Amino acid sequence: MSTEFAAATAVHRRDDGSYDARIVDGWDIGGNANGGYVIALAARAMADAVGRPPLSLTAHYLSPGRPGPVVVDVDVIRAGRRMATVAGRVRADTTEVLALLGTFAEQDPGGPAVISGEPPILPPSEQCVSASPPVESGFHDRIVSSMRPVDAGFRTGQPSGTAEVEGWFELPDADQVDVFALLMATDAFAPVVFNRAEFPLGWSPTLELTVHVRGVPAPGPLRCRFSSRFISDGMFDESGELWDSTGRLVAHSRQLALVPRG
Amino acid sequence: MSTEFAAATAVHRRDDGSYDARIVDGWDIGGNANGGYVIALAARAMADAVGRPPLSLTAHYLSPGRPGPVVVDVDVIRAGRRMATVAGRVRADTTEVLALLGTFAEQDPGGPAVISGEPPILPPSEQCVSASPPVESGFHDRIVSSMRPVDAGFRTGQPSGTAEVEGWFELPDADQVDVFALLMATDAFAPVVFNRAEFPLGWSPTLELTVHVRGVPAPGPLRCRFSSRFISDGMFDESGELWDSTGRLVAHSRQLALVPRG
Repeated sequence: MSTEFAAATAVHRRDDGSYDARIVDGWDIGGNANGGYVIALAARAMADAVGRPPLSLTAHYLSPGRPGPVVVDVDVIRAGRRMATVAGRVRADTTEVLALLGTFAEQDPGGPAVISGEPPILPPSEQCVSASPPVESGFHDRIVSSMRPVDAGFRTGQPSGTAEVEGWFELPDADQVDVFALLMATDAFAPVVFNRAEFPLGWSPTLELTVHVRGVPAPGPLRCRFSSRFISDGMFDESGELWDSTGRLVAHSRQLALVPRG
Repeated sequence: MSTEFAAATAVHRRDDGSYDARIVDGWDIGGNANGGYVIALAARAMADAVGRPPLSLTAHYLSPGRPGPVVVDVDVIRAGRRMATVAGRVRADTTEVLALLGTFAEQDPGGPAVISGEPPILPPSEQCVSASPPVESGFHDRIVSSMRPVDAGFRTGQPSGTAEVEGWFELPDADQVDVFALLMATDAFAPVVFNRAEFPLGWSPTLELTVHVRGVPAPGPLRCRFSSRFISDGMFDESGELWDSTGRLVAHSRQLALVPRG
């Protein structure tokens, strides 16, 4: 619990099995807590309840998270020998913020590997630009993330034309991205639709985000790729690949979100 | 409720808000109910509770479904103007079979579309072969699905070498695949890892399956593509695209599953 991130996502088990936590001021984008940050906080409680890290976790966003105390309700649906299935809810007073469902288990390395894909080839981070959307983002002051310059054209009215963002992610005060920060990283970059001129720069609400944790990140920054293939009827998918410094895929995410309305 | 599928996934609301249903004998693969079939049944109850169809639905598999009565417990977490978020559980007596979490809403057509992808180009269905795995499958007698011959080599000891399956899907007694059959279709084909010689032909348990419903299918069969990019440490992703007869993507799925152990 030595990083600012760990402190800001700390959870405290109560006698009734729920967890007290706090959405800490400063982890917001334009006033709303970053969605990945709230997922990380919830996942800590769910993982604590079963003594295992997340393997596949889905979150549905219900309302924006605001700074202040929250309760994470945890329901252990089934705890088997290796896998545990857990439901979670984050609420602030009577406002539901996030609903989650996940399978929790340790990684079990070994066996044949067949990988189709490679980590993105990125310029050095000092040649990249902030991964934040063009609004005030305390969140992006608390992490170290940056995009390829080619993906940041939307910030100056020159979207790349490709619904894609690639960049770096790490924590400022840790050598290693742990599994909870890994979850957060899957929702830490500007929405890829910002790079299509059809859409205004505005709030792009995530409906649902699913993360498959595929490995424990090695020390060092993550290389991340986000892209969308299907933008239609006001919705888009955003698929994410997060690779560690050894060139290993450690998280594979997909979300369904609404395009910004302006 | 005119199709065999509709009858086999019928749900009946009880006074306490749960739903009675039945896993009907004959919808199994090797004795266990097809996972997509159980998802469809659960989704009917969840959709009924909020009067809206599924938009994004995640299911975690807890234990194999066996023929007999089941109860679907439905928890409406939040019902907004357009979106409703709903949790579901399928249990047979005291055995938990499936846990679900989803957002339910009608499609809202319109706005700019940016699509990167095309429906698979398939041989006519009469030149395709059964999409079933090489075990007894009542399930595959109840649907009409078939694979490209190139994807069916595993059935004769000649896996294609590519973790991919493409083929047709429709119901035998309906012109149109409704949204619930669409959910089922995302888990109706043999696992794509069968086409990699590294893995034995055997049970490949799905841990989690998420479906984004991206449109209402037009009449006619679906063209489906399933593929995996990341097979490692005993697990694989399987991503699915289901296209309707007008060439429109109607469902986008991703699952995390365990490779067969033989």
